[in-house]
Amino acid sequence: MTLLTPQAAGVFVIAVTPFHPDGRIDMDSCDTMVDFYLGAGATGLTVLGMMGEAPKLTVEESRDVVARILARVDGRVPVVVGVSAPGFAQIGALTQMVMDLGAAGVMVAPPGNLRTDDQIVTYYSQVAELIGDVPFVLQDFPLVTGVQIAPKVIARIVNDLPTCVCLKHEDWPGLEKITALRKAGALDRPLSILCGNGGLFLPEEMARGADGAMTGFAYPEMMVSVVEHYTKGEAERGRDIFDAYLPLARFEQQPGMGLAIRKYTLARRGIIAHDALRKPGAGLSANSRAEVDRLIERQEQRLKELG
Amino acid sequence: MTLLTPQAAGVFVIAVTPFHPDGRIDMDSCDTMVDFYLGAGATGLTVLGMMGEAPKLTVEESRDVVARILARVDGRVPVVVGVSAPGFAQIGALTQMVMDLGAAGVMVAPPGNLRTDDQIVTYYSQVAELIGDVPFVLQDFPLVTGVQIAPKVIARIVNDLPTCVCLKHEDWPGLEKITALRKAGALDRPLSILCGNGGLFLPEEMARGADGAMTGFAYPEMMVSVVEHYTKGEAERGRDIFDAYLPLARFEQQPGMGLAIRKYTLARRGIIAHDALRKPGAGLSANSRAEVDRLIERQEQRLKELG
Amino acid sequence: MTLLTPQAAGVFVIAVTPFHPDGRIDMDSCDTMVDFYLGAGATGLTVLGMMGEAPKLTVEESRDVVARILARVDGRVPVVVGVSAPGFAQIGALTQMVMDLGAAGVMVAPPGNLRTDDQIVTYYSQVAELIGDVPFVLQDFPLVTGVQIAPKVIARIVNDLPTCVCLKHEDWPGLEKITALRKAGALDRPLSILCGNGGLFLPEEMARGADGAMTGFAYPEMMVSVVEHYTKGEAERGRDIFDAYLPLARFEQQPGMGLAIRKYTLARRGIIAHDALRKPGAGLSANSRAEVDRLIERQEQRLKELG
Amino acid sequence: MTLLTPQAAGVFVIAVTPFHPDGRIDMDSCDTMVDFYLGAGATGLTVLGMMGEAPKLTVEESRDVVARILARVDGRVPVVVGVSAPGFAQIGALTQMVMDLGAAGVMVAPPGNLRTDDQIVTYYSQVAELIGDVPFVLQDFPLVTGVQIAPKVIARIVNDLPTCVCLKHEDWPGLEKITALRKAGALDRPLSILCGNGGLFLPEEMARGADGAMTGFAYPEMMVSVVEHYTKGEAERGRDIFDAYLPLARFEQQPGMGLAIRKYTLARRGIIAHDALRKPGAGLSANSRAEVDRLIERQEQRLKELG
Repeated sequence: MTLLTPQAAGVFVIAVTPFHPDGRIDMDSCDTMVDFYLGAGATGLTVLGMMGEAPKLTVEESRDVVARILARVDGRVPVVVGVSAPGFAQIGALTQMVMDLGAAGVMVAPPGNLRTDDQIVTYYSQVAELIGDVPFVLQDFPLVTGVQIAPKVIARIVNDLPTCVCLKHEDWPGLEKITALRKAGALDRPLSILCGNGGLFLPEEMARGADGAMTGFAYPEMMVSVVEHYTKGEAERGRDIFDAYLPLARFEQQPGMGLAIRKYTLARRGIIAHDALRKPGAGLSANSRAEVDRLIERQEQRLKELG
Repeated sequence: MTLLTPQAAGVFVIAVTPFHPDGRIDMDSCDTMVDFYLGAGATGLTVLGMMGEAPKLTVEESRDVVARILARVDGRVPVVVGVSAPGFAQIGALTQMVMDLGAAGVMVAPPGNLRTDDQIVTYYSQVAELIGDVPFVLQDFPLVTGVQIAPKVIARIVNDLPTCVCLKHEDWPGLEKITALRKAGALDRPLSILCGNGGLFLPEEMARGADGAMTGFAYPEMMVSVVEHYTKGEAERGRDIFDAYLPLARFEQQPGMGLAIRKYTLARRGIIAHDALRKPGAGLSANSRAEVDRLIERQEQRLKELG
Repeated sequence: MTLLTPQAAGVFVIAVTPFHPDGRIDMDSCDTMVDFYLGAGATGLTVLGMMGEAPKLTVEESRDVVARILARVDGRVPVVVGVSAPGFAQIGALTQMVMDLGAAGVMVAPPGNLRTDDQIVTYYSQVAELIGDVPFVLQDFPLVTGVQIAPKVIARIVNDLPTCVCLKHEDWPGLEKITALRKAGALDRPLSILCGNGGLFLPEEMARGADGAMTGFAYPEMMVSVVEHYTKGEAERGRDIFDAYLPLARFEQQPGMGLAIRKYTLARRGIIAHDALRKPGAGLSANSRAEVDRLIERQEQRLKELG
Repeated sequence: MTLLTPQAAGVFVIAVTPFHPDGRIDMDSCDTMVDFYLGAGATGLTVLGMMGEAPKLTVEESRDVVARILARVDGRVPVVVGVSAPGFAQIGALTQMVMDLGAAGVMVAPPGNLRTDDQIVTYYSQVAELIGDVPFVLQDFPLVTGVQIAPKVIARIVNDLPTCVCLKHEDWPGLEKITALRKAGALDRPLSILCGNGGLFLPEEMARGADGAMTGFAYPEMMVSVVEHYTKGEAERGRDIFDAYLPLARFEQQPGMGLAIRKYTLARRGIIAHDALRKPGAGLSANSRAEVDRLIERQEQRLKELG
């Protein structure tokens, strides 16, 4: 089993949780989804992300989904599992379970009541102590958690805790934060920075020094391509690709509707069997489905023009 | 097994979760705590309340605690279990588990993202559908959930959903809400109203028409006495008792510190073996312990004066 | 003086407040900005919007800015003024002041403590009573205000209060809300729906039945063009234009940085003299400025391709 | 004119804003209120506090109220004026206005968007630079502002900014914060700590090292007495007094209703002429008025017993 390292780069796609229309987990779609993501060039996967439907799963279901996905991945890429929970007992139990199953590391978001610099550092110190030598991803997503983590606080955490190997960067605006962390001397050791927000700022994030993306747009090939072109120094070509997908990426990034759009798109592409969301989630209206369809048509047209 | 009914009255003490200093659950203290609460006149118990340490338990631990408490209670009083969770799968699984163990009903708080009247009604309709014929307590606690439920929305829920048998009233200020719900014609059928906030407004709540308390002050005998005196029409005597305990009740009601004070007091009284909180909770400073000690001394003195 | 009506359509540009680098208001730039906006096809202007720097102005400065802009507009298009304030006395005084100066109406966002349907309806009833026959815009912007207004609550307000002539639609996701309000019978009388969010969803909003935009992208000509093409039934051409501007529009829409980007762009275009923000606002880093420059170059290139 | 100093102690009563039933400011009641507060032993006054009705006043009204109160006080005690506002221009203008009128200093709460330690320090540095040599009170009230200020951040502010002379301490729980700031070496220079929360924790706050209270209970004589007894080393007598008033103080401290209760009590005592609140505030129901009446009767009885 490979563990996550500070050299993590490329695109870690955040996997959706496929359901049958009646609400049961669709295990077969877990397989087709994994195959697709890896075929599209994903260098890693992240499951049970906080913005998805992970909180709608029972503990047993969470284990089954993680097990199924890990089995299908079969060591080809590292798999990170989100283990954020209100209490340490839950975080500890979930971490042990997924690491035993073969995960490469875990991801932890700060609980929403943290405010001061020291509270945040203390929390991650306690988490790191709890999970021992398991590498973890610090999820920095203030828009949802309400917790703002200054670059110097991230630096304190990274410098103090060797198991903090990766930052899931989802601050908004966050470009200056990448620049601050990439400044010579800001950190004592390497840190992988993978960016979120559906890839909506990926070109600029790569230009600032990010190592890639960890997020969930329904066309991960866009993110793979942008990261590759930026890595090869072909920024303009990367932007051309990005711009072609942007109208849909923007549409998918609507808070409160994004997951339904993503699942609809994935199902339309045949990557999962159904676009079903578990209650209380709701699917797309006919209007919205038509809008996505139209955006995809135009996207394909634009990609054809680009060649 | 007795189910919770709209006739629920008296004091449902919200039980703490006792831990050993090393963080393990202290099962023996579950027994002594139950014995004490029932001896003090509790007419019911509530476990896994959202303000306590329930979120720090794994699913297995939650089951073990509920099972132990139910075994000790042994049907003498109804036991309500808090099952609030981000997703319906978890709520459903937890409900089934605790009802199978012998709980009398469950308590559900609204998730923090609910805002409009219809969103709230829809949520509870879905919960009621999910848990079938299990009676439930609607937990109305805006200060923590951020969700404000107008009296007419509570009325819609109660009138529409026969399994909603009890309101845990914890709005602040909420006295007018009790009056609104007790007005002739406000509701189509009986509803138990049990009040929270550590009993800090219990005399006024009883005068407005509440049926009792569902909360967790370390001297539940105060709440039992206030409810009894109000029920017997001896309001002034009830207030005398209340006032004697108020300095400590006020101190225990400090947000962020209340549970540590309550556990310290319970341990000091010999009701649980340790005042330990699970991480990331912290215990009381020496100063705070001395303050509680002094408040208890004065309380005992005052009770002696009252006779 | 023309008052705002339910027939308001097109693009009401939300004006920035131009400052000198030393923090004084730049009155000359108010003039050049007005000239530019009207030249670009704006059908109205909105000043003192809540997301801008209006709260950084003293009452006297607010009056001076509104007076200067109204003088320059000179009745050519209606001007709406944001008057949201914590208290009715302030709302009333500000409304009277700007209407005396010649504004066409005012815009009012709900205070952040409103939650239940009735609280929201009551608030707007009191506002409408307070400002008499002044037409007002209901600003629906939950991401910032925290207040969620269901379509049926908007309908109650519109149907009850004849002076509520326009909805500034900025819910996110909000497309279904437009559809709900445009459904036959939803409203008793006409209502102008103008959309916000920097125009980021303008094509879809127009398709759902919006009348235009009320927001502040630094290239208002994009919004004007999109609205015109949709109005003429040339949706695809509208989308082509939209897509060309989208990379920059997306960049400008970053919360916390958007205004600095917008001012930098406006100053770069010569529309205002300086990109200065008043403290505690901060300007753009050299990196960000270069990113905007690059986005504008690519945008011009793409527009040339489109012809 | 005397300026506020770090030696400020005793009770700074937070004044209400008296209105006529029709909503006009009741200037005569400003006089009787000042006379009463000073007669009750107040060592200072604070006006335009953020929890009161200050945001309901126009700028002109604010000036008139401050002028009237300052005229009546006539230099006998220092008067602090709350100047918190969204922008520096407003803070600067209001500060200059009230200092010209004879205020002793101003009070500034942090805007709700501040999160990290450095953001908070930077904000107060900018405020201090803006208002020059005017002494100011740092208002620390996380329950309302959402901003948590660690003791070491307060220390940085106090040590860096000589004009920060007083902390209005209203964190909850905040007793450990007082202890932390009173520890030898925590601060480089003296700091007045005056506590809020309606005096609900005043005995414990005094014991921890507070200098007094800055808050608004309708019986300021209680707070004056508690502070005096603690200062003289007569803690038990101080507690006896405190306990006698606690049932009413607790009732007045209900969020959302406190000000109506306070005004009703002040009017009942003849200290102001009317209990009117400005819209959208609402007065007390008949039930609530009767509850206050009963609490006052019992309070008087208990004080008689205490002698």
